[in-house]
Amino acid sequence: MNIFVIGIGLIGGSFAKDIKRLRPDSKIFGVDTNTSHLDEALSLGIIDVKSGYQDLTQADMVIASIPVDALAEKLPEILDAINDDCVVFDGGSTKSLICKTLENHPKRRNFLACHPIAGTEFSGPSAAMEGLYNGKTNIICEVEKTAFKLQERALGLFQEMGMRIRYMNPLAHDRHIAYVSHLSHISSFMLGKTVIEKEKNEKDIFDMAGSGFESTVRLAKSSPAMWTPIFEQNKDNVVEILEDYIQNLEAFKELLLENDYKGIYTEMDNTNKIKEILKGIPLNKQ
Amino acid sequence: MNIFVIGIGLIGGSFAKDIKRLRPDSKIFGVDTNTSHLDEALSLGIIDVKSGYQDLTQADMVIASIPVDALAEKLPEILDAINDDCVVFDGGSTKSLICKTLENHPKRRNFLACHPIAGTEFSGPSAAMEGLYNGKTNIICEVEKTAFKLQERALGLFQEMGMRIRYMNPLAHDRHIAYVSHLSHISSFMLGKTVIEKEKNEKDIFDMAGSGFESTVRLAKSSPAMWTPIFEQNKDNVVEILEDYIQNLEAFKELLLENDYKGIYTEMDNTNKIKEILKGIPLNKQ
Repeated sequence: MNIFVIGIGLIGGSFAKDIKRLRPDSKIFGVDTNTSHLDEALSLGIIDVKSGYQDLTQADMVIASIPVDALAEKLPEILDAINDDCVVFDGGSTKSLICKTLENHPKRRNFLACHPIAGTEFSGPSAAMEGLYNGKTNIICEVEKTAFKLQERALGLFQEMGMRIRYMNPLAHDRHIAYVSHLSHISSFMLGKTVIEKEKNEKDIFDMAGSGFESTVRLAKSSPAMWTPIFEQNKDNVVEILEDYIQNLEAFKELLLENDYKGIYTEMDNTNKIKEILKGIPLNKQ
Repeated sequence: MNIFVIGIGLIGGSFAKDIKRLRPDSKIFGVDTNTSHLDEALSLGIIDVKSGYQDLTQADMVIASIPVDALAEKLPEILDAINDDCVVFDGGSTKSLICKTLENHPKRRNFLACHPIAGTEFSGPSAAMEGLYNGKTNIICEVEKTAFKLQERALGLFQEMGMRIRYMNPLAHDRHIAYVSHLSHISSFMLGKTVIEKEKNEKDIFDMAGSGFESTVRLAKSSPAMWTPIFEQNKDNVVEILEDYIQNLEAFKELLLENDYKGIYTEMDNTNKIKEILKGIPLNKQ
């Protein structure tokens, strides 16, 4: 099978690595606007050959793992270029605009809208990991719009890779993912900013930071090029949940100012139930 | 050597485990108001014997690892009870009130004010870990107020345990630790609260959460009994940095509302330097 990976970074590269392992007969074609990433992917053995859009007619499967603004722009072109028996799926963290953009595309049936909930804060081909998707959730939107035979081709791969499948509509996806992913990134970026600004003249103070700080600011290492268009496409949901978050922080501050420590205890005690919730989240074992 | 551990949870229990390993001749006396913790610590072999304040005259070293409100209340009594050749140190996450409280105590020279920057979000004797402190920073305040011979006794242990020592005054400690630790806990608790409230009718939505969410809300599992008095004692510093954080989140929201995606990119790009900062933080390998 000829498999094209468009965008050969953490997400696309990790797909390529699993495919190599599970289906050694596949040929992996790499496409990337970043030529040094492409060279790196080739030398790391993540792809078999460097390729481009002009070769897409040869593809049996296309994995589009580029930032969500590029997906909205390029997916119509990708669908234009493929043959009728090729399945294209993406890995974008927003689904509404992409599904809307392709709504009336003559090859809509060749596309499967996906969001594999997996990743790390790193990017580029060197960040690609075998087994990244094992045990992780893959959210699929508007599955009914994809040709059955092509659904099966993609789902078969996801199953071999050990992914759990969940079906959802694009609007619900974008709303919930704002809560459980996009907000965490803003919280982390702004936490990092706040502390860096405060300590800008005392750099060695970070000796004092422990694993708790590391955990809460880890996502502030994420790629701005990837995250800016996510926030743009999901602006309304992100603003709404960000306002709730700010309001809760303000309320916590008020309790402090009023010396209401019973109230503060209760806030934390009520939130401790996150323990049970987190038990269900599959984590990367790195 | 007779070593008393007052408060036999994660912090005290991890000290006890390392002492057992490094100095097998030591006898570990456990003291805890929670009798089931005390029984558990005994059955886990973390302590050799259950004990109480009445036995403190036998102590060569006392490790006070109880919440910071209890430290402020109990440390004077502990110092009253020990003999002149005993060193007492604590592990509290705030240092100003404790140092102030003991300022004029006749046995001030027997006390070493410590804050080992180590821990996990878990608590109780079962959370105690051998090697927790290896490679971690221990901040010592007002070292000059402790008798030299007693400093040496405690520092010798810290060195054997692999800790890095930093000296600081209590006011500077409390200010900086508000930035690099206390704020992270509030950020995490309120993030957990925000998402739990939003998703209260859709519990299975947490299938969608990945390791990024887990990382940013991990600290929301922390003990309210431990954290409430920390926020109380460090209120001024915590309120100040919390206000900065809220302001940065508001500014990020404004950029979104104004569709200033170049501004959003720049905010994230500037904060990416956290990568370099985080490289210096020793983490738990669990």
